[in-house]
Amino acid sequence: MKVVITGGTGFVGQRLAQALLQRGKLTAPGGGQEAIDELLLFDVVIPAKRPAWADERVILRAGDISDSAAVAALIDRDDVSVFHLASVVSGGGEKDFDLAIRVNLTGGLNVFEACRARACQPRLVFASSIAVFGGSTMAPVVGDHAKQTPQTTYGATKAICELLVNDYTRKGFFDGRSARLPTVIVRPGKPNAAASSFVSGLFREPLNGEVCRIPVSEDTVMPLLGYRSIVGGLIALHEAESAALGDDRAVSLPSFTVTVRDMIDSLKRVAGARKLGEIVFQPDPFIQRICDGWPRDASYERATKLGLPRDASLDAIVENYIEDFL
Amino acid sequence: MKVVITGGTGFVGQRLAQALLQRGKLTAPGGGQEAIDELLLFDVVIPAKRPAWADERVILRAGDISDSAAVAALIDRDDVSVFHLASVVSGGGEKDFDLAIRVNLTGGLNVFEACRARACQPRLVFASSIAVFGGSTMAPVVGDHAKQTPQTTYGATKAICELLVNDYTRKGFFDGRSARLPTVIVRPGKPNAAASSFVSGLFREPLNGEVCRIPVSEDTVMPLLGYRSIVGGLIALHEAESAALGDDRAVSLPSFTVTVRDMIDSLKRVAGARKLGEIVFQPDPFIQRICDGWPRDASYERATKLGLPRDASLDAIVENYIEDFL
Repeated sequence: MKVVITGGTGFVGQRLAQALLQRGKLTAPGGGQEAIDELLLFDVVIPAKRPAWADERVILRAGDISDSAAVAALIDRDDVSVFHLASVVSGGGEKDFDLAIRVNLTGGLNVFEACRARACQPRLVFASSIAVFGGSTMAPVVGDHAKQTPQTTYGATKAICELLVNDYTRKGFFDGRSARLPTVIVRPGKPNAAASSFVSGLFREPLNGEVCRIPVSEDTVMPLLGYRSIVGGLIALHEAESAALGDDRAVSLPSFTVTVRDMIDSLKRVAGARKLGEIVFQPDPFIQRICDGWPRDASYERATKLGLPRDASLDAIVENYIEDFL
Repeated sequence: MKVVITGGTGFVGQRLAQALLQRGKLTAPGGGQEAIDELLLFDVVIPAKRPAWADERVILRAGDISDSAAVAALIDRDDVSVFHLASVVSGGGEKDFDLAIRVNLTGGLNVFEACRARACQPRLVFASSIAVFGGSTMAPVVGDHAKQTPQTTYGATKAICELLVNDYTRKGFFDGRSARLPTVIVRPGKPNAAASSFVSGLFREPLNGEVCRIPVSEDTVMPLLGYRSIVGGLIALHEAESAALGDDRAVSLPSFTVTVRDMIDSLKRVAGARKLGEIVFQPDPFIQRICDGWPRDASYERATKLGLPRDASLDAIVENYIEDFL
């Protein structure tokens, strides 16, 4: 079978691709495990150098998710599954509303229509976000069935795509599942335009001996999950029995709700004798405002019931990063 | 000032237009009441004969809401307000998914973008629906802050537009307000493609001495409101202080939760000595399924707080219809 990952050359996309190659198979349309013979990573830019882990099954393709013909061409077989990760991120969406609508909404519709066109009801896993929740009426802990009143355009477009995934699935156009991601840590490489980008930086830069600048207060709270569990959750959600999801296809992934202070404490514990770069607080009201609009705490009853993974602890997430990247 | 009503030649659109002409003024962008000198009714078809109530302030224009240039041309002044009622209805949307997306989603985006382009933050009232609620996890009584898991494409597109109204308002592109309409009764004229169309027929046809066919069971429950209160609610929501709505701009209009049996009893009470046409139960699983997916009961705390009107009783709604149309 073929697997398409949109946003496939991003960090989560590449980790997911590696996990799928290692796994080697997935549930195909109609049920039953099939070997993955093609893994297509679609993204707005692809790396100049082919990743070392990419074996002969991997195809890298650059293109624009808002181009319906380019997206339709990706999903050109009936034995196909799709992981739709392509997205403008939170901070980027606040700065460029039109881009967020074009990539996240029009792009989402293009992917959903391309799946519908196959008429084989492919499984589709959509990467949503807990940023779908927010606003003044938000409960202290947001559960899977909380009302979605997002306070970023990023969150609004994710909530809209959750509604579309539900309706396309209800109509039998595809078999959709939405995974609401908390903040993903620890991302290697450079910071990105996500308002939560600093959270990975908080671990990454000091471990590289570099100075890290934190744009929010020490008390800022955020639900987090390690990238291994994120990838495991996306695959587990793909593999879940369709009936187990019912008429609401969206599931908040498990998470750890911690403050910036908790993160720094964890880093220091795990780093042990390593010499860490300095952590400097440098408030940025734009980032603080976005983070304050997100859920302070998210429960994940549905994910637990579906057996989706959660790292052992925040410390374990940091240890995994050191093991995988340092 | 100018007022644009999309879907303006539909029943609610025409009643709203008449009420606005009579009222003569509305709160203009920037605050303060201004006289309405132009009332533009935009619809996919306009009546061959100009309505008798339409004075010189009224312009009727036929066009396609999914045509962005046609919609942009409607909103051509900075002293403008918009009532966005144009919509494919529930039963119609279930039969033609693509049409529902084109009219309700693309059409909505066209209206929202046209308002944004004015840069005067016009007030916009969007006619949403309690069909945004539904599904297996729906509470017995759905309040303003219930999660939206619609079970029709109609409801999904309305929920999506509520999210867009919230986000465009948050961004300061316009000053939006969404009114969630329950089933509107009593609509005169012919049945339409709404799954709830029979509810008006239940009163209208017997009062005309005609046979009425009810496609659902006598126990089917539905929240209803009379058209006078619907129109009054749309105008009151337009006139509400923006701050009173906060970061969630959507309000469920008041309603009466009654069974089909209650409706028939009310009709008989109000009709008195009139000879009524026969009421025949003729089950239609397509209609029953849609109605069963809607809320059985909706609360309306926010509407009450904002002072939005509710008819005195179901009997009073039927009496109004007789007074206005018979």
